[in-house]
Amino acid sequence: MTYRAPVDDIRYILAHVAGFDEVTATERFADVTPDVTTQILTEAGKLCEEVLAPLQRAGDLAPARLENGVVRTSPGFDAGYRAIADGGWTAITAPPEFGGMGLPQTLGMAVNEMMSGACLSLQLCPLLTLGQIEALSHHASDEIKALYLPRLVSGAWSGTMNLTEPQAGSDVGALRSVARPKGDGTYAITGQKIYISWGDADFMPNIVHLVLARLPDAPPGTRGISLFLVPRNLPDANGDPGARNGVRVISLEHKMGLHGSPTAVMEYDGATGWLVGEENRGMAAMFTMMNNARLGVAMQGIGVAEAALSHALSHAAARRQGQTPVQGGSGAILDHADIRRMLACMRAEVFAARAIALSCAVSIDMQTATGAAEWAARAAFLTPIAKAHGTDTGVLVASMAMQVHGGMGYVEETGAAQYLRDVRVTPIYEGTNGIQAMDLVGRKLMDGGEAAWRLLEEIEQGAEMARAVLPDLAGEVWAAAESLRETTEWMLTREMTDRFAGAVPYLRAWARVLGGHMHLAAAYAEGGCGRRSALARVFVERLLPEHAAALAEARAGAEGLYALADDDFAA
Amino acid sequence: MTYRAPVDDIRYILAHVAGFDEVTATERFADVTPDVTTQILTEAGKLCEEVLAPLQRAGDLAPARLENGVVRTSPGFDAGYRAIADGGWTAITAPPEFGGMGLPQTLGMAVNEMMSGACLSLQLCPLLTLGQIEALSHHASDEIKALYLPRLVSGAWSGTMNLTEPQAGSDVGALRSVARPKGDGTYAITGQKIYISWGDADFMPNIVHLVLARLPDAPPGTRGISLFLVPRNLPDANGDPGARNGVRVISLEHKMGLHGSPTAVMEYDGATGWLVGEENRGMAAMFTMMNNARLGVAMQGIGVAEAALSHALSHAAARRQGQTPVQGGSGAILDHADIRRMLACMRAEVFAARAIALSCAVSIDMQTATGAAEWAARAAFLTPIAKAHGTDTGVLVASMAMQVHGGMGYVEETGAAQYLRDVRVTPIYEGTNGIQAMDLVGRKLMDGGEAAWRLLEEIEQGAEMARAVLPDLAGEVWAAAESLRETTEWMLTREMTDRFAGAVPYLRAWARVLGGHMHLAAAYAEGGCGRRSALARVFVERLLPEHAAALAEARAGAEGLYALADDDFAA
Repeated sequence: MTYRAPVDDIRYILAHVAGFDEVTATERFADVTPDVTTQILTEAGKLCEEVLAPLQRAGDLAPARLENGVVRTSPGFDAGYRAIADGGWTAITAPPEFGGMGLPQTLGMAVNEMMSGACLSLQLCPLLTLGQIEALSHHASDEIKALYLPRLVSGAWSGTMNLTEPQAGSDVGALRSVARPKGDGTYAITGQKIYISWGDADFMPNIVHLVLARLPDAPPGTRGISLFLVPRNLPDANGDPGARNGVRVISLEHKMGLHGSPTAVMEYDGATGWLVGEENRGMAAMFTMMNNARLGVAMQGIGVAEAALSHALSHAAARRQGQTPVQGGSGAILDHADIRRMLACMRAEVFAARAIALSCAVSIDMQTATGAAEWAARAAFLTPIAKAHGTDTGVLVASMAMQVHGGMGYVEETGAAQYLRDVRVTPIYEGTNGIQAMDLVGRKLMDGGEAAWRLLEEIEQGAEMARAVLPDLAGEVWAAAESLRETTEWMLTREMTDRFAGAVPYLRAWARVLGGHMHLAAAYAEGGCGRRSALARVFVERLLPEHAAALAEARAGAEGLYALADDDFAA
Repeated sequence: MTYRAPVDDIRYILAHVAGFDEVTATERFADVTPDVTTQILTEAGKLCEEVLAPLQRAGDLAPARLENGVVRTSPGFDAGYRAIADGGWTAITAPPEFGGMGLPQTLGMAVNEMMSGACLSLQLCPLLTLGQIEALSHHASDEIKALYLPRLVSGAWSGTMNLTEPQAGSDVGALRSVARPKGDGTYAITGQKIYISWGDADFMPNIVHLVLARLPDAPPGTRGISLFLVPRNLPDANGDPGARNGVRVISLEHKMGLHGSPTAVMEYDGATGWLVGEENRGMAAMFTMMNNARLGVAMQGIGVAEAALSHALSHAAARRQGQTPVQGGSGAILDHADIRRMLACMRAEVFAARAIALSCAVSIDMQTATGAAEWAARAAFLTPIAKAHGTDTGVLVASMAMQVHGGMGYVEETGAAQYLRDVRVTPIYEGTNGIQAMDLVGRKLMDGGEAAWRLLEEIEQGAEMARAVLPDLAGEVWAAAESLRETTEWMLTREMTDRFAGAVPYLRAWARVLGGHMHLAAAYAEGGCGRRSALARVFVERLLPEHAAALAEARAGAEGLYALADDDFAA
């Protein structure tokens, strides 16, 4: 289970597929020379391979546990976290005025991918802090920024997101936690929050919770939600962690995986909190944090997929079973056609998911650098696709990686099972993949399809360009994009229930067409000849055809689903 | 996590879809009246709901463990197993001359499905015994039959299969265990076997191992393998368990799931064994056992899918989140289009997989009752499809069931995660699903496509018949069968490496087309109007379209896979 950081693949995607050169051509990111990029990726890869990956199994075997109110973390996680913070990895995308390096999100996301592949349960801790830094940077008062941001950026303290309550999951608007003004500008927060990742940790001097709650007499639903900052320890006059605040962990969940990450039930009992942003505008502030986190979770899925694939590949290159059809081959099972099919599809899937996600990150950086609405719309459109598809890819590839191992894959010592158990949460948290798809066909098509048309043009232009070099592959991608265009037109004419009934397959079709587009760009960049082109062919021949089935399902509409009565679902 | 036995659905499939009336019309199974069928299914369903399902979580929380050489089983498993044996459930398909009821395999498989859904890890024990009964009935000497079969049929003793060795998994021919003739008609068996399910159990008075081993000077590969019966305790003069034989469990595996089933590493150290069948013909005898077991494993996948679906359905019918689009609906999340899509697809998947598997079981019974080669060929063709697709459905539906639960699904107490962890082994054991697909495109097409053409005719005749009632659905199924026919013709012209490179998607396409066929038959039987027809429409609109993508991949050939060098699989 030795993790190998995919530095070369990421560099190739940045250079030839995702358009990172546009980012580094802006004034904002002019300092990001190719050398900086290489250095960041190489150093992060080293940390992941040497320091974080060895913690992966320890976190699984010795889960975080609650002991007399203290969350005891897994062995080695303290030192692992310190290595992340001391290496400056919590700071790379953060604002320079608070100690950050101000590097592009694209590089931050690439680093997150590698940290996720190395040790997902530990990586979740700094990932949530990054989201909090983003939210505070945009919405907090100058006092809060000055006090908290330097400590979060340096990794001295960590941050959490507190949205979910037992009755309020996907329906955030149903939350009941209350915030009473104390008259001194602060608020008393009371309520219970669940599924709080890294809700506490014995090695953390302070933890900063961002909590959604309602003011007394706030309007119902999402329009009555405000965001509060609630530190575990109230900072003293020097800004050091002082008296305990009225918040505690009352239990940790027993989960299928991600055992190294403490998932807490938090009890707020009149805890002192500070308003972040405006009253009743908490959802807007939270969305800043969530959009970033969604792409971060996409990287988690992709990172685990990469790790599981590389683990399966090691096995397939060493294990011998039966005679293979390859004359002069290694004699390992990698030579068997079906094993080779699995590994080729896994590699093609990981490439596509990574390229889509990094292309989304490039849009975010271009939005930051240029302020252009078109880049913002592109990022907004790609985010739910990247999240849902990246995490579905994580589960799919981890499951195939187990299959490549045969019986050994089901035995925990091999490590293949842990990847699947760990990554299985990623299609669920940060908005289930169903919610992502509804976001795509709902909010993200509310522009009348503007963002969709622009992306489709981008894809078709790419296919036109590649046609001279790879006419067959380019033709397939172009035709798939045309089908997607037709279904998008259809979607825009339908009521929301019809759209929702086809949302998940519609998103899947986008992922397939974008995947074909990315592979084609990679193949074109090497002149249509070489390993990237061979992989592109695998994708176009074996995976792209799924777009048609997905589009057929996307257009099926809601009627057939509601033709079944509730009782008809029983056997 | 209350299990509800799908008695109604099974009865409907037997009566209207799988052709069970043909079985009961034979002389051999003339006693199997509709009343007998109903009684068997109802009683088995009761046992599963009341006795076995409550053991499911106990087995997960308190795994079987090895203690001073004794396998201590999970709490309640002793009583659960006794309830299975005392109820006669180990005997229903066994030969009457040895205490069995001689009922059709179709009923046995249906019962196995329900037991698997209720408690997979316990059900595995009697399932393996059934396979052993089958193998001994066909291949053992009369002495062995007389001594062992009554005790296995009654469930007094259990049986295991010992094929795998560390270097011999899918490549059974690589096994090294040796059997030296002792000169008294018995053999001394020495070697190590791994992944032996229910290799031992503290509540079992005796356990009978069927072991593949090599005679001295046997030819290499599979042509030098013989089958031996090795009891844990040597029967004394009364046939009661006597002295310990030279076989012991040296460790149990730590697995992703199925914790209640002890998976043993077995050490044979000159253990006394008896030859079953002829020398060097062990593979043939083992295949008898394995074919039965493969369909049994298909039922495991389907059983867990049913249980996971019904668990998700309970959640979806109770949980409220957000406003649903249904006026006057229950207000539960089942009313949301995307949740409804998931549950409808899950139900359609489970129906299709169940109908395919039971249709395969009907062929086995018809082969037994009539001896006709056509039925044997149909059973042989359908078995790998039923196994691979049934178990893939188990994993798919269990994963969707977790998704329906949202965050709760990832928390172990909910029970959704266990279904996924437990069922994940089924695409791996009894021949990986890749091996099943290779069997389909290799051995099962060696008749020049005879069996395939007959099945395709059956499907097209069904579509022709249904055309009057459900023209659109019938048209889709007919067209899909035509595409499958074309790809089958293509397959028959190709070298084996090309076939293997498309084997898995080719099998998947068969499952989709057969699924459409089964759904169409169910809808036709209710006159094209009602819940079966609504479900058939969901299948045809949303799932059948996948056959085209699968066929495209099936025809991709091996060239593209071998165009990638071994190093190209790395990132």
